[in-house]
Amino acid sequence: MPSTHAPMPLARDSGEPLADQIVRTVAASIEERVLRPGVRMPSIRRFAATHGVSPFTVVAGYDRLVAQGYLDSRRGAGFFVRERPQPARHEAVPSRGNADALDVAWLIRSLFRQAPLQLSPGAGVLPADWLDGAAVANALRELSRQNSAALLAYGTPHGFLPLRQQLQLKLAEREIAAGPEQIVTTVGVTQALDLVAREFCRPGDTVLVDDPAWFLMFGSFAALGLNVVGVRRLADGPDMEQLAELAALHRPSLFVINSVLQNPTSTSISAAKAYQLLRLAEQFDFTVVEDDIYADLHPGGAARLAALDGLKRVIYLSGFSKSMAPNLRVGFIAASGERAERLADRKMLSTLSTSDIGERVVYKILSEGLYRKHLDRVRGRLDAARPRALRQLEALGLRPDPAPGAGLFVWVDAGVDTNLLAARALRDDLLLAPGSLFSPKQLASTHMRLNVAALQDAGTIRLLERALGG
Amino acid sequence: MPSTHAPMPLARDSGEPLADQIVRTVAASIEERVLRPGVRMPSIRRFAATHGVSPFTVVAGYDRLVAQGYLDSRRGAGFFVRERPQPARHEAVPSRGNADALDVAWLIRSLFRQAPLQLSPGAGVLPADWLDGAAVANALRELSRQNSAALLAYGTPHGFLPLRQQLQLKLAEREIAAGPEQIVTTVGVTQALDLVAREFCRPGDTVLVDDPAWFLMFGSFAALGLNVVGVRRLADGPDMEQLAELAALHRPSLFVINSVLQNPTSTSISAAKAYQLLRLAEQFDFTVVEDDIYADLHPGGAARLAALDGLKRVIYLSGFSKSMAPNLRVGFIAASGERAERLADRKMLSTLSTSDIGERVVYKILSEGLYRKHLDRVRGRLDAARPRALRQLEALGLRPDPAPGAGLFVWVDAGVDTNLLAARALRDDLLLAPGSLFSPKQLASTHMRLNVAALQDAGTIRLLERALGG
Repeated sequence: MPSTHAPMPLARDSGEPLADQIVRTVAASIEERVLRPGVRMPSIRRFAATHGVSPFTVVAGYDRLVAQGYLDSRRGAGFFVRERPQPARHEAVPSRGNADALDVAWLIRSLFRQAPLQLSPGAGVLPADWLDGAAVANALRELSRQNSAALLAYGTPHGFLPLRQQLQLKLAEREIAAGPEQIVTTVGVTQALDLVAREFCRPGDTVLVDDPAWFLMFGSFAALGLNVVGVRRLADGPDMEQLAELAALHRPSLFVINSVLQNPTSTSISAAKAYQLLRLAEQFDFTVVEDDIYADLHPGGAARLAALDGLKRVIYLSGFSKSMAPNLRVGFIAASGERAERLADRKMLSTLSTSDIGERVVYKILSEGLYRKHLDRVRGRLDAARPRALRQLEALGLRPDPAPGAGLFVWVDAGVDTNLLAARALRDDLLLAPGSLFSPKQLASTHMRLNVAALQDAGTIRLLERALGG
Repeated sequence: MPSTHAPMPLARDSGEPLADQIVRTVAASIEERVLRPGVRMPSIRRFAATHGVSPFTVVAGYDRLVAQGYLDSRRGAGFFVRERPQPARHEAVPSRGNADALDVAWLIRSLFRQAPLQLSPGAGVLPADWLDGAAVANALRELSRQNSAALLAYGTPHGFLPLRQQLQLKLAEREIAAGPEQIVTTVGVTQALDLVAREFCRPGDTVLVDDPAWFLMFGSFAALGLNVVGVRRLADGPDMEQLAELAALHRPSLFVINSVLQNPTSTSISAAKAYQLLRLAEQFDFTVVEDDIYADLHPGGAARLAALDGLKRVIYLSGFSKSMAPNLRVGFIAASGERAERLADRKMLSTLSTSDIGERVVYKILSEGLYRKHLDRVRGRLDAARPRALRQLEALGLRPDPAPGAGLFVWVDAGVDTNLLAARALRDDLLLAPGSLFSPKQLASTHMRLNVAALQDAGTIRLLERALGG
């Protein structure tokens, strides 16, 4: 089989490592069927001699070709070209269904895909270039230099202890007293909500949520057999009369609330309502789950339910997906010691432990004081972007309801069914987040959530205008 | 307040960075109450001038002191010593309860804590120095050099695509055909089992498991309201008669099985039983969950249920916690396209996405061919350790049942209730894994699981002997 023995064109001066050249040229020969399935490759020694390279270089190249599925290694017999499955090179594009009907499941998945933010004014994340990628990369690099034993062991079920000690300090700034043993790390706030609902609810229980509220939670709770009921969210917190009625009617086990910078309305609860809410929780014996994921975008000084209550009736959740990096997947729960212990056991049953790689990265960024500066910058940029965004919205005839004073979101009334608007926007690949997503009963709505950081781009505004124009 | 203005002893030639010295000495002064709560620190300029250091160094030091909770920064007013919560410096030692009764919850938690393997012959992991910490560290370092956008975005719900392409090739080696769209990454096999049970079972359903089997799964399924029923595991796979009876009686929704190198018995299913099992699954309409977490410790050539069945009735799970590094928390599910789509949606509801940091590390190690060599080494070491361990066990009067030919575990009959044995061993801080843990009904047993890698240490053998001696 002469073709396998013909020298490959390896170039010593090209700057491309020789092993890479071997991988590339052999792979190309196989792709082009110059080397056919089943053909035996030259022995390592022979290939090395023919090409004037070290046998080690050939071993490295062949090993990678085996790993990439081009070659088979048969012990004692050498390397053979493989009948190779063709890996799909690109993610299949999910179907969108009909152009005018909105496929909500598709939309939700898309809002978490890596679309450019200019095309996703409905997304719930900061622009990537507002985040501190260098700090994350530095922390990872330092981690790679540490004793590798730490990278190899299971983390503890509560999570990386030095991070929990840092979180104790961070919570103390919000006047929430919680020792490290009261803190359990999670795979983002999503896992935190899932663990809390699984530990403290039974199928058939009612869970109260804000209306509107974060959509993923509805599916998560419904999948647990829970009855999800919305409480109207007003500019200063929940509609307390409705809350009292619903609590009396349903005897809920939980009320899940963003007290500060609520998603999607960017409203925060007043001190008076915070106090009333805790009184109602006592009267009707429900647990309050304070989901404080947007905490760090708030300028400070807001009342936290967990601070008032001392983590007796309140379970507090927060994390770093919004403000540091979603991909680290670091969230946490703070609760009474007894509840934290139960939640750590529940976490073991669900994911055994969390990876402490992300937790060590967050720890490093928090403990070196980089995070505080980063947040100052982010809040500054949001404060600059928000008035510009509001002016643009005004020009488009979109009314903020209410007008936000902080945070990432503006909740607007478009005056038309935003499901239709979102379906129209999709024709231009523009992802909107219609109000129906945020409705616990998925009711159609004239509202939608917009990301003020995404509204800085003239192209985005033009596409939004086009969707509004019908 | 003269004490705050007295120069700190900073040493320019000590090798310790000046900012570190500032942090250390200020922190010590606060700990020793030389600087008292509420005291104002010298201004940055003044501190810099007094100590002859750059203001930037002082800012870096003060920022870290704020992050560590020693100082408060009040905008415009400067830095103040803080009334500081005392973080706990060490993890509280969990109580073990009474010396002779075994606290199973405590034991399970302890088996996943970072105890030295010499003291944990019941643990289910390889020794840390058998794993390739350098490869993990290298992969993390390379990751930190990449475009940081990848570190900042959410991963996709199915998981990092290039890893799934590698897994396609890896599965093809086991004759399992699965495209990347049929693969969903998970936080270890633990999350994989949890997602599968949540998606394909309803409360009250029966789930069949091996008896004995991996203990964490029992709690996970019980928490979902499932009825867990064990099928006797024999040397060549399940007891087929009992399986047929239980399937007819309970009409289970799932049978979860380690086909290869079963935990804890290290047995593998015969080809004949694999075929019969799939016939029974068809007859009684249940899904087979093939948990293949120990796959890579097997020398090769074993029948996989997923290969026979083509992922129609079989859902296949595996991962890298055992063979690469537990802390990466990378597992995966391979299933039919329709099931994989449902599981990816279910994963979104549970943890939104997985962190692709771990997934990129695994991808790199797989694609560069390092993993194959690592596994050859690990299997070689296990094959050398196993006969030594078996000789030691023979000398101690512990009978392997059956004698393992591969894998990490040996399942031994100690001839006494291993709950009592485990309680006695704990007096010497030796962690055993008594048979009751692996029993779906937590029945007392004379069996226990031992880790052949942990039995290489003379001290471990001595402690085991002492526990056996009563």
